Amino acid sequence: MIPAWMGLAVMACFQVTDPPAVPSDPPSPPLNVVVFLVDDLGWQDVSVPHHTHPTSFNERYHTPNLERLAAQGMVLTNGYASAPVCTPTRTSLLTGRTPARNRITYWTFNKDSDTTARNPVLSAPPWRMNGLEPHSALLPEVLSDRGYRTIHIGKAHWGAHGTPGSEPTNLGFDVNVAGHASGAPGSYLSRHHFMNSRSETDFSRSSRWDVPGLQAFHDRDIYLTEALQERMVEEIRGAMGDGRPFFLHFAPYAVHTPIMPNTAHLDRYEELHPREAAYATMIESVDAALGCLLDVLDEHEIADRTLVVFTSDNGGLSAHARGGTPHTHNHPLRSGKGSAYEGGVRVPWVVRWPGVVPAGTRSDQPVVTQDLYPTILAATSPAPTGKNPERVRELDGIDLASILGGGEVSRHPEASDRVILFHQPHTWGARGPGIEPYSAIRWRRWKLIYFHSDRRFELYDLAADLGETRDLSLERPEVLELLIARLAAELRDHEAQMSIDTVSGKPVEWPDEVALSSGTNR
Amino acid sequence: MIPAWMGLAVMACFQVTDPPAVPSDPPSPPLNVVVFLVDDLGWQDVSVPHHTHPTSFNERYHTPNLERLAAQGMVLTNGYASAPVCTPTRTSLLTGRTPARNRITYWTFNKDSDTTARNPVLSAPPWRMNGLEPHSALLPEVLSDRGYRTIHIGKAHWGAHGTPGSEPTNLGFDVNVAGHASGAPGSYLSRHHFMNSRSETDFSRSSRWDVPGLQAFHDRDIYLTEALQERMVEEIRGAMGDGRPFFLHFAPYAVHTPIMPNTAHLDRYEELHPREAAYATMIESVDAALGCLLDVLDEHEIADRTLVVFTSDNGGLSAHARGGTPHTHNHPLRSGKGSAYEGGVRVPWVVRWPGVVPAGTRSDQPVVTQDLYPTILAATSPAPTGKNPERVRELDGIDLASILGGGEVSRHPEASDRVILFHQPHTWGARGPGIEPYSAIRWRRWKLIYFHSDRRFELYDLAADLGETRDLSLERPEVLELLIARLAAELRDHEAQMSIDTVSGKPVEWPDEVALSSGTNR
Repeated sequence: MIPAWMGLAVMACFQVTDPPAVPSDPPSPPLNVVVFLVDDLGWQDVSVPHHTHPTSFNERYHTPNLERLAAQGMVLTNGYASAPVCTPTRTSLLTGRTPARNRITYWTFNKDSDTTARNPVLSAPPWRMNGLEPHSALLPEVLSDRGYRTIHIGKAHWGAHGTPGSEPTNLGFDVNVAGHASGAPGSYLSRHHFMNSRSETDFSRSSRWDVPGLQAFHDRDIYLTEALQERMVEEIRGAMGDGRPFFLHFAPYAVHTPIMPNTAHLDRYEELHPREAAYATMIESVDAALGCLLDVLDEHEIADRTLVVFTSDNGGLSAHARGGTPHTHNHPLRSGKGSAYEGGVRVPWVVRWPGVVPAGTRSDQPVVTQDLYPTILAATSPAPTGKNPERVRELDGIDLASILGGGEVSRHPEASDRVILFHQPHTWGARGPGIEPYSAIRWRRWKLIYFHSDRRFELYDLAADLGETRDLSLERPEVLELLIARLAAELRDHEAQMSIDTVSGKPVEWPDEVALSSGTNR
Repeated sequence: MIPAWMGLAVMACFQVTDPPAVPSDPPSPPLNVVVFLVDDLGWQDVSVPHHTHPTSFNERYHTPNLERLAAQGMVLTNGYASAPVCTPTRTSLLTGRTPARNRITYWTFNKDSDTTARNPVLSAPPWRMNGLEPHSALLPEVLSDRGYRTIHIGKAHWGAHGTPGSEPTNLGFDVNVAGHASGAPGSYLSRHHFMNSRSETDFSRSSRWDVPGLQAFHDRDIYLTEALQERMVEEIRGAMGDGRPFFLHFAPYAVHTPIMPNTAHLDRYEELHPREAAYATMIESVDAALGCLLDVLDEHEIADRTLVVFTSDNGGLSAHARGGTPHTHNHPLRSGKGSAYEGGVRVPWVVRWPGVVPAGTRSDQPVVTQDLYPTILAATSPAPTGKNPERVRELDGIDLASILGGGEVSRHPEASDRVILFHQPHTWGARGPGIEPYSAIRWRRWKLIYFHSDRRFELYDLAADLGETRDLSLERPEVLELLIARLAAELRDHEAQMSIDTVSGKPVEWPDEVALSSGTNR
């Protein structure tokens, strides 16, 4: 039974245990931090509108708990993932740097093994295909040093199989639940033991897709997201019981492939294509886990001192494995996961931070995953000494505190002239619009894409043309020139590794070298 | 007599003394450095063309020694002074920082005394009206620490009367010849004792304009520039005799007012307005001093290991004291000294650096005075440790080595996307176009000016309209918006002090705040 002291906010999403030892009120209770990082969740895959108006996708999907978070926090409508595939975004979260600077520009899998797909004219530069290595400045390392219980639950995918970075506890996490080097589960079902054998009786053939560490759930009828949610509650309670602040990185494998329904939620989506219905249930079960998180924070009366960030590691999958017409699942955005277009990188972003973020607000200020590193470190800073680790490293992210605090854009010095760089010198294994090796910047209303294969530029005015339907590179030569200059400067500053031209054997030219030779640039 | 070993290159511009003790060839002889900083010399005030073609001004003035330097070095046609008046440029040379970051944004004179002229709607922010203070990272300090003989000759004007910065030997110079807190000589004539009494018999009434330290010349019939030139030769020989590398900052008071002819050169300019003829002789005598410098370097066979930079501290005077029509003396540039327009800040720039600068070349890459700080420190670096003082300070200048080395603009990472900031929140004591408190940026082909009094923007395409005759701020709203964003970002980054609105008592808005309120910016 639920003890009366817990109140009505407590729902049946987790097993109720003995009341935890709530720490007595310290003068300045430390801030807990939760990064709720969904996988492959598209910008339109929630019921919280991120566009100027509610869309049909917002109506299709049911994320009441995200609505609850948004009502108490801020929706960042121009929120980006660091990259259009997962590992680079995840490693940028832990480093505060872009994928280009990290040289982790694509997804990782096996040690010393390049996952880049074949391309007749380009090959990948020598990137860090083993992903992250243990490093004292990684986000969980720094927080651990500050006394935080650092908890990872779900998909890790920071380092390759056979390397130390595959194990989250080597990257600063005190606790690792179900995370390893693979970016997808074999199955979302406990009766499959979360393995991809799909046999319900023979589990002898292991594979690298087997979700580790959830043996206790194998004989229960439970969906992967729910199993992770139960472990989340236990881990938060454990930290509370020890009287320690916590950093929780909750990364449900969902809504990554394999797209498998959580049958508890299927009824609502009967009219949809079966795969789309399954996808909708995956979203809904992610939202249920979010609701469970919010409930447990309420239960412990720590919601007012817990920063919660909800976002995704790349845009929604639309090139394959989905129902309906490919490349339409992020409409009004163009294309999806893997693409240079907005569908590849623009993602849901909701932040609740009592005392800082005004409830029920929205911001159109561009933000990106690597911003969470300096934001979280500044928010949890033990002392205003200016000697925090993040101060001495070259960071690409910016502290979002002033943006999250609301107010005029012009009041945010770091953001007012900000350029966000994207750089993926890799060929993804699926075809579709913008799914090519590229570099790009978002600067104010403008987006410039430089496609490596044919060195072509595309320029879009996102304020007027969010769907990137009208390339203005010929119509706006002056704006094009300025954007090319900034893109080239960003790439040089990052010492970005360009794709290799397989004919010449040389790296693809900096964008302003192309422009110069065609006379555009001067 | 001239010893035969000196060869024909030695001219009668200096007194020949005993042959100096030429040091034996060390394995890597250190680089000597000369900054030849003329005062108020306009972009057109030389016979070396800096425009796309020779102009009538280039034909009027005679600077054969600058032609000689240019033939052996590089002409930087987009070379700027840091500011349209002198002290800010001079202090930027010694710090590597912009006037805005130094907070030395106007010319200095007396201790704690503001030289800003009156303005009905604006007052100056609390700037450093005493100018430079002694500081271990000043350019001559660092070079002195590296074993250089550091020699200042001529106009100093780095710090106010009554403060330590008025004396160059407090700023890292081993030698000070004729420099103090004033920015002009009382007279250019020895028979006036270089005082402004203009009496040739009574020198009892001293003033702050009296040039100090040249008593030995008072009874010779000699022009100030020639006296300084003689001292220059002595000082170079002294350094050579000691076997030390030298840093020479040679700053003839010329061609600053009072405009007084060097009669030795007058014949050539008989057809000109008398004041213009006098001005032309001042230029010619500056050029003669340059020739003398080049000769003494040849004499000592150190030309091949001496970096020589010739430039000016602001644009040519055109608002008053000149003959002819005011504001035309820098044509094709608009306006002159004190102005936000190109005439106020674009100046001659010639660099000779054997082994680095290809002889007889030109570059249109924008450069500015504060670049000389990192350039000189890198060029004279004792060891490639990366631990030079300039590395640990926040600098605005960039190392020009790659630009000076020639090649494509795109090969210069630091320069390819460069913005040069100008910021003068002061009212100058003369009237004319653009002579108002302002902030501005030069970025690629564009120039944006933000005038503080009425918060108006002017946008010029310098590639198409060097004379800034056609304001494009209404025609190019998209370019305007991007330039405003960059100007605002630069000003915030510099923590620039804006003019104070005398009605509201508050600082003038950042440029993007103005744009936001009028709806231009988004």
